[in-house]
Amino acid sequence: MNRRRRRGSVVLLSGGMDSATCLALAALDDPPVHALTVEYGQRHAREVRSARALARRYRVARHTVLRLPLAPLLDSSLTRARRALPRRSSAKGTIPSTYVPARNTILLAVALGYAESHRLGTIYLGANAIDYSGYPDCRPPFLRAFERVARLGTKVGVTTRQPIRIQAPLLRRSKASIVRWGERLGVPWELTWSCYAGGRQPCGVCDACRLRAVGFDSAGVRDPTLRRRA
Amino acid sequence: MNRRRRRGSVVLLSGGMDSATCLALAALDDPPVHALTVEYGQRHAREVRSARALARRYRVARHTVLRLPLAPLLDSSLTRARRALPRRSSAKGTIPSTYVPARNTILLAVALGYAESHRLGTIYLGANAIDYSGYPDCRPPFLRAFERVARLGTKVGVTTRQPIRIQAPLLRRSKASIVRWGERLGVPWELTWSCYAGGRQPCGVCDACRLRAVGFDSAGVRDPTLRRRA
Repeated sequence: MNRRRRRGSVVLLSGGMDSATCLALAALDDPPVHALTVEYGQRHAREVRSARALARRYRVARHTVLRLPLAPLLDSSLTRARRALPRRSSAKGTIPSTYVPARNTILLAVALGYAESHRLGTIYLGANAIDYSGYPDCRPPFLRAFERVARLGTKVGVTTRQPIRIQAPLLRRSKASIVRWGERLGVPWELTWSCYAGGRQPCGVCDACRLRAVGFDSAGVRDPTLRRRA
Repeated sequence: MNRRRRRGSVVLLSGGMDSATCLALAALDDPPVHALTVEYGQRHAREVRSARALARRYRVARHTVLRLPLAPLLDSSLTRARRALPRRSSAKGTIPSTYVPARNTILLAVALGYAESHRLGTIYLGANAIDYSGYPDCRPPFLRAFERVARLGTKVGVTTRQPIRIQAPLLRRSKASIVRWGERLGVPWELTWSCYAGGRQPCGVCDACRLRAVGFDSAGVRDPTLRRRA
């Protein structure tokens, strides 16, 4: 067993602005970088196209797009075509219908197996606890609990003192702060995609579009994915 | 949100003797029972046939066979055809090459999403800490850590006082004790399959075959999947 600190990281890359910022950070702090995009039955493949473009731009060591046929199993408006997407932000303290049961647990579990198999030391996840739309699996206690699972449930965790770490560098940042940070890192926003609806242009009304717009507006940065309005 | 104790369970059904015994227990203790079989790129589909036969025998409410294309991602002799299977039991304290990185974390994560989506209260896993072949993700501290993830990372966990439970009723039992318990429950051993190699007959030399043989021998029960020897 290699006793040096394991180098390298795997970034869970959805193609949105948060995971793009994580990719930029990982490329800076923890190369070589692998990217893992999980299609778990979202409504559209638009995000995957963004993820591919980002992985190319950052010349990752390897980009894997994994199709997991989970849509029939998981109950959410993001995975069920017949359920309408919410048209406005959810009330504070409630969990919106776009919540996908155990989504981040599933993503982190797959990334954990990937990281251990490729001898990478760190998993980057773009989870965000402030503008997190009420998802329980975007909160610090959940991530600490998963890190414990990573330590106790893997060979690298029990046989070395260097378990695989979970890095969620955006956890306590507002969307505006993420935009400002991404600007300094040179994140190519034009390659990212946030909208839940997945048309040619962002819908502008879903939770993801609204959070993104607030972030860019508050940071005083123009979002290059939006057409200029008259 | 329903405040009554959530009824019903999902059994992670591989088709082996441990998960078959779990299925028999769940059918007794926690109906309605759903079964979830995850093909994560094992070498053979023989186990899946056993899982289907068991699910039919126990008339489960729903049996889902989920194909997750994880084989290229996960490094193990169970998922890589070019790596030889070990022909004898591993030395005590070592982790054998049949260990699949983060396997139980991935299985439990998917079962967690399934259980929450179908409003089931319990996940049954046939993990075994005594004859566990050295796998870190078959030990009690790992399962407790995952239960914490289930509580903190799901809507049902944070909004009710009834998080989804993980039941691993075979955790501290020897294979012989599992055989004796299964006999009392009437588990149809002839439908189960344990061998890693997956031919027409069990190979008799892999870890799984050897553990199974020790179990049946010690319990004084004939294994109906073995041809009588001259």
